[in-house]
Amino acid sequence: MIVSDRSVSRRRFLQSVGVSGGAGALFATMGALGLAPAAASPAPPFSPPRPSDFHLTGRKPRRVVVLGGGIAGLTAAYELGKAGYDCTVLEARGVAGGRNLTVRGGTTETDLDGHTQRARFSPGVYMNAGPARLAQWMVTLDYCRELGVPIEVFTNQNADAFVHTEAAGAPIRYRTAKADVYGYVSELLAKATDQGALDGSLTAQDKERLLTFLQSFGAIGGRTADWDYAGTSRRGFAAYPGAGTDAGTPLPGPPELSEVFAANVGRYFSFEFGYDQAMLMFQPVGGMDRIPAALTRAIGASRVHLGAQVTSVTDRAGDVEVVYTRDGRTRTIIADFCVAALPPHLMARVPHNLGAGVQSALGTFPVTPSGKIGLEYRRRWWEQDLRIYGGITETDMDLSHIWYPSHSFHSDRGLVIGYYNTGTNARTYGALTPPGREARAIAQGSKIHGDVYRTELASSFSIAWHRTRHLEGAWTSPPTGTPGYHLLLQPAGHVYFAGDWLSHEVAWQHGAFVSARAAVTALHHRVMSH
Amino acid sequence: MIVSDRSVSRRRFLQSVGVSGGAGALFATMGALGLAPAAASPAPPFSPPRPSDFHLTGRKPRRVVVLGGGIAGLTAAYELGKAGYDCTVLEARGVAGGRNLTVRGGTTETDLDGHTQRARFSPGVYMNAGPARLAQWMVTLDYCRELGVPIEVFTNQNADAFVHTEAAGAPIRYRTAKADVYGYVSELLAKATDQGALDGSLTAQDKERLLTFLQSFGAIGGRTADWDYAGTSRRGFAAYPGAGTDAGTPLPGPPELSEVFAANVGRYFSFEFGYDQAMLMFQPVGGMDRIPAALTRAIGASRVHLGAQVTSVTDRAGDVEVVYTRDGRTRTIIADFCVAALPPHLMARVPHNLGAGVQSALGTFPVTPSGKIGLEYRRRWWEQDLRIYGGITETDMDLSHIWYPSHSFHSDRGLVIGYYNTGTNARTYGALTPPGREARAIAQGSKIHGDVYRTELASSFSIAWHRTRHLEGAWTSPPTGTPGYHLLLQPAGHVYFAGDWLSHEVAWQHGAFVSARAAVTALHHRVMSH
Repeated sequence: MIVSDRSVSRRRFLQSVGVSGGAGALFATMGALGLAPAAASPAPPFSPPRPSDFHLTGRKPRRVVVLGGGIAGLTAAYELGKAGYDCTVLEARGVAGGRNLTVRGGTTETDLDGHTQRARFSPGVYMNAGPARLAQWMVTLDYCRELGVPIEVFTNQNADAFVHTEAAGAPIRYRTAKADVYGYVSELLAKATDQGALDGSLTAQDKERLLTFLQSFGAIGGRTADWDYAGTSRRGFAAYPGAGTDAGTPLPGPPELSEVFAANVGRYFSFEFGYDQAMLMFQPVGGMDRIPAALTRAIGASRVHLGAQVTSVTDRAGDVEVVYTRDGRTRTIIADFCVAALPPHLMARVPHNLGAGVQSALGTFPVTPSGKIGLEYRRRWWEQDLRIYGGITETDMDLSHIWYPSHSFHSDRGLVIGYYNTGTNARTYGALTPPGREARAIAQGSKIHGDVYRTELASSFSIAWHRTRHLEGAWTSPPTGTPGYHLLLQPAGHVYFAGDWLSHEVAWQHGAFVSARAAVTALHHRVMSH
Repeated sequence: MIVSDRSVSRRRFLQSVGVSGGAGALFATMGALGLAPAAASPAPPFSPPRPSDFHLTGRKPRRVVVLGGGIAGLTAAYELGKAGYDCTVLEARGVAGGRNLTVRGGTTETDLDGHTQRARFSPGVYMNAGPARLAQWMVTLDYCRELGVPIEVFTNQNADAFVHTEAAGAPIRYRTAKADVYGYVSELLAKATDQGALDGSLTAQDKERLLTFLQSFGAIGGRTADWDYAGTSRRGFAAYPGAGTDAGTPLPGPPELSEVFAANVGRYFSFEFGYDQAMLMFQPVGGMDRIPAALTRAIGASRVHLGAQVTSVTDRAGDVEVVYTRDGRTRTIIADFCVAALPPHLMARVPHNLGAGVQSALGTFPVTPSGKIGLEYRRRWWEQDLRIYGGITETDMDLSHIWYPSHSFHSDRGLVIGYYNTGTNARTYGALTPPGREARAIAQGSKIHGDVYRTELASSFSIAWHRTRHLEGAWTSPPTGTPGYHLLLQPAGHVYFAGDWLSHEVAWQHGAFVSARAAVTALHHRVMSH
């Protein structure tokens, strides 16, 4: 989520594969790479520790204490456990998973401001309050496969959802916005090309190929029609074509070019091009927390101690001592190693003897606030009235995004994400009480959806990650190039750090999984080397 | 599928909503329409006949014989049956549904050339041989909802699937092709705009807005970077970003502009913009034939006579006589009305007394050939090796399209559609024996997928719709503007015609549903008027 679209320059491409600038071979190379299994590698090769690593060498598995039962902590315990490591996971919250939190009827949460919410969602209705989507290349899917967690499509993009900008004044369908923007872009480029304005950049053959492409891409007229964009059925219909002589009722339009660009309806188009956001994307059937639930089962639930808050970490000559409180009592674990998988800003508050460098480095991860609200509706009006079966409506209001549910199509009820925002917008919503957040979300969302957005509402549940106990943030911005970041990639005595914050895929479970794998690999290598 | 992208001109838009050319109000009008329920109308309002229509008027439901148990025929019987009409459906094939055919292990088909195939697919593996996808606006979804047929996403588009053109020489990922084409298009248009080449079409404000859009859309540099496209993470990675210092391995590239357009990788981009093909799309869980199966259950299976081939239709003074053969015996039905829902080219072969005009009109529907092959694989290598979870690979080989399955992700086996083509390509494949089709599909598909495409194959089943008994074509091209077409929209005595061929959504089940509704409405209105 953090990598800039333009962060990968051509120079870096060429350096990375050791090819010179000769263009002729590049396409074939790229194509060939597209075929190679390596082209789809979700992560570096990983070999989990095996029981035979110990059986065959006379060594014994060690004891490991894991701080934090989020995805990174659970994964460390799961992978080490495969070889027989004796792992204990200490999780401060009442449920494992960390930010991977699925809210269902009965879920209760008291935030740092003392607001207590108890979700009143109906059976089968849930809200993925944290991570909610998985790209195909992410190692998260491998864990779903390995753990037997069924997946289904997450609807990250929908031509029938809306784009709403305050400048446009009223929502329009994504398909309509796209057709008009692509139409005018194609018209303009075709005109410039045909008039010779780009003769410095294009050969005659390039020009003909480009013009052919633009006619298809923009649904524009040809040379004799002056490459004019005059609308297209791609915009959608007010009433779709039907029987007999019913050719359908087109939408009015298209608006003039100036109006389309003034409305800025194209501002969200590039979202779906992102290497981490492009469809197809996926979600576990039944809720994202099927993943930590499956990890916990695989680890052994008795090894995952909930409500266990770490109060000190002391690295010692031959082991590590972790003190924690649980059920009002103070307890101590002595282990051979520790995997510290708390968020860095929370780890920084745990008294430890890992050094000033570690402490300083833990303080260099800026924390991003984020919030979501789940709105349960008594009927699926987005399907029934608007023919929107999943997907996302984008707005420039401070709710940012509205998500329609990706599952249980055609069922009685359903849950809409009424806002998903970050930064200032998340702080604005997070500063409100839960009823205040609901009121604001409904007031804004009604501008798009009308009265139904209020009248069919059954209940809501909201989360402000920066105000959530034992997490206090949605994700961090790792200072990846700094000495401090590099320091945390190394063990501090017997303590290894892990989490999405120690990866190049922060804010994604993928980052937590691969970071945990890296810690496991390093720890196991050390054990096997002595 | 037939409506041209450009068939809806601006003039027609404006005429259709009665607005003049003033642009200022159009955007708001369009937006407002986007909000109105009418904007999402899948079809004209339809009120099925009700039992009370008869109870309250002293009239009696009539007897109706329906020719053809495809979607149109079944729907006619289903809707009429709601009011108590006594319907009998005559279906020549061994299964109801017509072209809505789902092939499973055990499905047997002997074609017009005498080739017999018996599918050897594993449990849970199936092939939707005919219709396979549903757009959100289609009335087909309403029938799924009404009939209790669960739906799931059909993966009609996937950034990780391939584009393969013979000119490119090797397949590349859709996401890579898109990033490069959009990047260069944006670079070119930004340069032309900034150099003043489009000052005749754009105001200064338009220009700045367009340039802002193009930077986002193409991931290009700004003015100081001469609007240069130099690659983007949107292209994807050879190895995706991982833990610690692993920022990922970018793909090589981008190729030069000339190379991108010469490879013609953009030729398929507009497919996903179509009003009938844009994501999100859907399919019934478990196979498309869940729809005719549910219709048949609702009608009453005993009313649907399979293996019943119509041999004559005689309109009489007060009723209609239909003669058919079944189990080698000739039978006769006398009914008050008939709904003729056979394909027009087959109806034209049934002896009747409906007039020379009808006979002539039935002969004016050109028939499109089409074919598909289902390839069952022993493992889901497209997921495991290539991280392709559904979607479509587009080629300019005569196999046209390769579909990866949209369901049962991560399961052991799966079925790939190895070709889906029409016209000449379909005739080429259809002229081969089933083993010959498999061999050709595998030879072509291996150019994209390598040896695994051959080595992991378990079995196949292919269909050539133009060579399939009792159907003899994939769909028709209705001569919608002609007197003949209009003639068939009227009853011929007591005989009403129905089918997707009498709609503006030919080749879609939507067309069959709305055509059946139109016939039912007309028939019922006539009954209630006497």
